[in-house]
Amino acid sequence: MSRRAEPQVADLVARARGGEPRAVARLISLVEDASPWLRDVMAALAPHTGHAQVVGITGSPGVGKSTTTNALVRELRAAGKRVGVLAVDPSSPFSGGALLGDRVRMADHALDPDVFIRSMASRGHLGGLAWTTPQALRVLDAAGFDVVVIETVGVGQSEVEIAALADTTLVLLAPGMGDGIQAAKAGILEIGDVYVVNKADRDGASAVSRDLRGMLALADRREGAWQPPIVKTVAQDGTGLDEVAEAIGRHHAWLAETGELRRRRARRAREEIEAIALEELRRRWGSVGSVERLDALADAVADGRRDPYAAADELLDG
Amino acid sequence: MSRRAEPQVADLVARARGGEPRAVARLISLVEDASPWLRDVMAALAPHTGHAQVVGITGSPGVGKSTTTNALVRELRAAGKRVGVLAVDPSSPFSGGALLGDRVRMADHALDPDVFIRSMASRGHLGGLAWTTPQALRVLDAAGFDVVVIETVGVGQSEVEIAALADTTLVLLAPGMGDGIQAAKAGILEIGDVYVVNKADRDGASAVSRDLRGMLALADRREGAWQPPIVKTVAQDGTGLDEVAEAIGRHHAWLAETGELRRRRARRAREEIEAIALEELRRRWGSVGSVERLDALADAVADGRRDPYAAADELLDG
Repeated sequence: MSRRAEPQVADLVARARGGEPRAVARLISLVEDASPWLRDVMAALAPHTGHAQVVGITGSPGVGKSTTTNALVRELRAAGKRVGVLAVDPSSPFSGGALLGDRVRMADHALDPDVFIRSMASRGHLGGLAWTTPQALRVLDAAGFDVVVIETVGVGQSEVEIAALADTTLVLLAPGMGDGIQAAKAGILEIGDVYVVNKADRDGASAVSRDLRGMLALADRREGAWQPPIVKTVAQDGTGLDEVAEAIGRHHAWLAETGELRRRRARRAREEIEAIALEELRRRWGSVGSVERLDALADAVADGRRDPYAAADELLDG
Repeated sequence: MSRRAEPQVADLVARARGGEPRAVARLISLVEDASPWLRDVMAALAPHTGHAQVVGITGSPGVGKSTTTNALVRELRAAGKRVGVLAVDPSSPFSGGALLGDRVRMADHALDPDVFIRSMASRGHLGGLAWTTPQALRVLDAAGFDVVVIETVGVGQSEVEIAALADTTLVLLAPGMGDGIQAAKAGILEIGDVYVVNKADRDGASAVSRDLRGMLALADRREGAWQPPIVKTVAQDGTGLDEVAEAIGRHHAWLAETGELRRRRARRAREEIEAIALEELRRRWGSVGSVERLDALADAVADGRRDPYAAADELLDG
């Protein structure tokens, strides 16, 4: 760990906490680039974390996630909250960033110093959100944003990961996007704290809402469990977003009252520690010396001279 | 490792190698359930692996992956090959299996003892295909299938993972599914060994093919590198599938001649060893004693008393 790094990191953190967007952006870049100063950054941020309310927004392509995020940010700003947005794009494992990205998304809030929006490509061996997003969230949390919205397309693991990361998960649906079987298949019934049926002015919105209500009623919930509300919206013109914000607030109060907020955050921290530890191991395995050993084991497995479990044991213990 | 398990595992492996589908299915279930006998299973399979040709098929929802897989299986069967199919459904992290699943897919080949089809939900902390699919592949390989087709929807990490797993990766496109930017964004230009433009009887198929050819021409390829062909198909009626099978065969011959097959398989083994080692660590961390330690670290991180990197170091070294 470089001594020289410290003054700059301390300065960046102080400026980020003072509300300077460029310092926030720089800290997130240090996270994304897995900078050698990352550990210093995280150590400096830690005492200031744990205050932001984390809202996840997920849904299939085309349901209106970006529009809804935009409208929600407007609603939260009207309530005087500082809002950070992380738009995670899991379809972009290679590019290191969304193609359209921040400039399109920023348009509505570009001049508002109390809104910070960042597009992130999800990547890394651990897949999906696991690696950089929780760290970027930590930056925004320490920088004093009251609410951090994490938006991701609901495909593959990403929607599960967003639910693990968020205090409150919004699942977006829209008419014409798929039938009940698809909804159940996508596992959305397990992860939503608030369901939003967007494009509610279109044909079929009531049917989506009704089917969803039926499926949620069948879901097995413990006594005293949160009953996820279903809110109809037209994000394009802001209709219903006040109700969404109200539902998020109600869920947050419920989390705090029941101790569930504390449990969710401890679980999030636990997963974060595990992910970092696993990544650190990969790094160690990739170091000179270790690489040769791993290559020799891989050759043995490829030749059928050893099975991969025996090889893994050797790697760990041997 | 249980001594008692051995006779049953040896028997199962022998029966699977003898072509008994129920024994193959049971071995894959042992993999999926992370059975305590898994290590015995893998040790028993290892000497028989390394012969199957692994073909990955990926593409966006709606391009006709299942239909193409079905038609390809028919083509391969006509050439006398025994074929295993793993249909991976990354949209189903919770269910432990696709809702529609095997019965729909099986229809065409239900009575053919030389075709084995299995739907798998992708899941596990390591995300996507990483955990169970390579092991299931190992089962089919050892059971003597000449070709194993792994089909997955191309979203998030799954298409990258399938490319890592397969000897030959087929990327499916179809007219009306998205423009050039989307194709580039999805990273498909990096992973395809054979490109298939399905639904070639529809408007726009030639444009898709032409755009793709243009983008592939721009891609930076080393001298002597494989030039991915573009094949037009109508999977519904089998048109063009002979060309697809021919392209797969040509690519396989190229892989073998250049030594690239050996390199790909060693890389696959390496990733498999790493994934198993990481999962084993997670298991150790989840054991009695370790859980309490990890929970204490998670509490400290959630409270801001420690940063997650320091906590990860303690978990690994402390």
